[in-house]
Amino acid sequence: MALIVQKYGGTSVGSVERIQAVAEKVRADHENGHRMVITVSAMSGETNRLIGLARQLNDAPALREMDVLVSTGEQVTIALLCMALQKLGMRSRSYTGGQVAIETDSAHGKARIKRIDEHRLQADLNEGVIVVVAGFQGVDEHSNITTLGRGGSDTTAVALAAALKADECQIYTDVDGVYTTDPRVVAEARRLNVITFEEMIEMASQGSKVLQIRAVEFAGKYGVPLRVKSSFVDGPGTLITLEDDEQMEKPVVSGIAFNRDEAKLTIRGIPDQPGVAAQVLGSISDANIEIDVIVQNVAKDNSASITFTVNRNDLPQAEALLRSIAAELGAEEVTADSKIAKVAIVGVGMRSHAGVAARMFECLAEEGINIQLITTSEIKIAVVIDERYLELAVRALHAKYDLERLR
Amino acid sequence: MALIVQKYGGTSVGSVERIQAVAEKVRADHENGHRMVITVSAMSGETNRLIGLARQLNDAPALREMDVLVSTGEQVTIALLCMALQKLGMRSRSYTGGQVAIETDSAHGKARIKRIDEHRLQADLNEGVIVVVAGFQGVDEHSNITTLGRGGSDTTAVALAAALKADECQIYTDVDGVYTTDPRVVAEARRLNVITFEEMIEMASQGSKVLQIRAVEFAGKYGVPLRVKSSFVDGPGTLITLEDDEQMEKPVVSGIAFNRDEAKLTIRGIPDQPGVAAQVLGSISDANIEIDVIVQNVAKDNSASITFTVNRNDLPQAEALLRSIAAELGAEEVTADSKIAKVAIVGVGMRSHAGVAARMFECLAEEGINIQLITTSEIKIAVVIDERYLELAVRALHAKYDLERLR
Repeated sequence: MALIVQKYGGTSVGSVERIQAVAEKVRADHENGHRMVITVSAMSGETNRLIGLARQLNDAPALREMDVLVSTGEQVTIALLCMALQKLGMRSRSYTGGQVAIETDSAHGKARIKRIDEHRLQADLNEGVIVVVAGFQGVDEHSNITTLGRGGSDTTAVALAAALKADECQIYTDVDGVYTTDPRVVAEARRLNVITFEEMIEMASQGSKVLQIRAVEFAGKYGVPLRVKSSFVDGPGTLITLEDDEQMEKPVVSGIAFNRDEAKLTIRGIPDQPGVAAQVLGSISDANIEIDVIVQNVAKDNSASITFTVNRNDLPQAEALLRSIAAELGAEEVTADSKIAKVAIVGVGMRSHAGVAARMFECLAEEGINIQLITTSEIKIAVVIDERYLELAVRALHAKYDLERLR
Repeated sequence: MALIVQKYGGTSVGSVERIQAVAEKVRADHENGHRMVITVSAMSGETNRLIGLARQLNDAPALREMDVLVSTGEQVTIALLCMALQKLGMRSRSYTGGQVAIETDSAHGKARIKRIDEHRLQADLNEGVIVVVAGFQGVDEHSNITTLGRGGSDTTAVALAAALKADECQIYTDVDGVYTTDPRVVAEARRLNVITFEEMIEMASQGSKVLQIRAVEFAGKYGVPLRVKSSFVDGPGTLITLEDDEQMEKPVVSGIAFNRDEAKLTIRGIPDQPGVAAQVLGSISDANIEIDVIVQNVAKDNSASITFTVNRNDLPQAEALLRSIAAELGAEEVTADSKIAKVAIVGVGMRSHAGVAARMFECLAEEGINIQLITTSEIKIAVVIDERYLELAVRALHAKYDLERLR
């Protein structure tokens, strides 16, 4: 008998019929002897409806009141799911974030969970009650309602699983698992049975939007086994875990991540001396613009150049800032390019394998794709290329590492 | 500088525009130097929408979960009203029933308020913050969400006014006050400036549906001055108070109440002996059927007859019960009549005036209206008549007591 926390997102509970389907699924697991804790999001569309009402009244509503407003979305779903479960003869009880209590800091709209009082839930579980908890929400120490921000329901599920020492935290979504890469780009992409937290974080931050990275980090920190499953089709999904124990020989590369949300900026001909990089990049960060890849080179004339990427939406502001710094520093030139894409190979197996990078570059060279930037971590090698070649690069790398044969 | 509690019902906050109008009104009162506490209902239609979702999932949903569900309606309104107030430059903070806290018993769907912790609201008011509280809801001692049932938002407003020792509790609704009688029946009906709690209770229970009787009783018990005002037109409304101090000479009759929701049952030829009335009426009460007027007579042959009224919807069940008791008691006959109406004259001035009843009966006789039943209290005389004569009776009595000249 396992203790399982399940999370169902907005599309999974988007209608009365979908809620009934969730209830059937929960009943099946409960009848298999598992103790069940369910976290749900607002019905799809509901949060946007509420935000729409707010915007009509106030273009900059207080975040405290926005949280009071949007937290009703999940509260509606917990009550409806309990009713559906009770209709099937199950005992079930709903809890808002405040009732659990899920205590957060006071950062309305993006609160972080501080602690969870699991006693009441535990008492219900011991009585065979199916517990249904509103995702995405909590209360601060003064009982003010808070919300956790984007992907908050995933985080709620993981936090509950950690507090209750659950055997598994299952995130139900509209895909049936984590894939070697986006199947819309590579038809041969395969669902992974297992992936490590580290790999998942690299895959997520590189643009695989199955799970919120925050929830994955949280699960990794507390060692909560996380499983991504589909609400719509049956299947084992993908287990995200600390170590991939199932396979003796870990694959070198587990997946290909990519994104085309970034733009590239270069400043050339700046003095090669301490403090210059800080001056250039500091001014960008100070404007709250997130920088992703950073590369610095020194040219033959001993002048330096710095290239970095930012989100494409931030390009105009970043470019303006960079030009004003360039003037201060007497830099040679500033160039901007929004037509780039980033492709990365990810895998914990890389750690123990030499030559992975060389093989990647060779593969791209074979396809005639020029590499503009390279950045690496222990379990990832990412390159920036012309966005026209993105799909070609992903397909070629997927084939190169035999990912269509990965299990 | 007064402390005022205001309550706005569902139609008063039924749209974004209506909420803006409420915010303007609240600002005006706040700028006149008053400390303001606002209680709101769910936007009109919202509660029914939520109940509709519930019914699709479960024809007999658990009351605990219904309360979790429908309490979101008021929670949406408090957030939106705060946003509208903030847009106007006011400082404002919202509270759910649980956050106040408004502690109730655990009777989900019809909970009763046990106590209110007013400290947090008081602290806000001292800082000049406009406090907005969700009506209709509270929490029990285990933090379960409860709702107060029909008219619950009025009760919330009165309870807050009592706890905060407010100077006045203003109930905004879609009528501009309490009238001498229903203006749809008597065109000359006048708005009353002042009415006592006792009179209001008699008026309300007789069918004047301006205010929930429960809120009026509550206000009377704690001596909270209650004012009914219109959300849609300006005006003083009607003040409901302990004693009508403004007028030295109280009017004998303040209003004419009526209703046609009742039906009449008579059982004739039963033994005139102790316990028979209890047996007859007990069986009706045991079936949870509310009995209103009760009259017992003894005939010349020393057999007794009992006549009583019930809600028209309960007539079939009540009649069946009565027939089975009639068989047991060997009663002569049972008759039922659903085509009746009840008309009552109400006024605290009756206490010190003789001949009020006689004048009423005289008036009805002049119109050729037969009186079927009579029942009286200290401040009310009610008669049951054929429902065809209802409007005629009300108009005649309104004229007889010069109510069109009442202020």
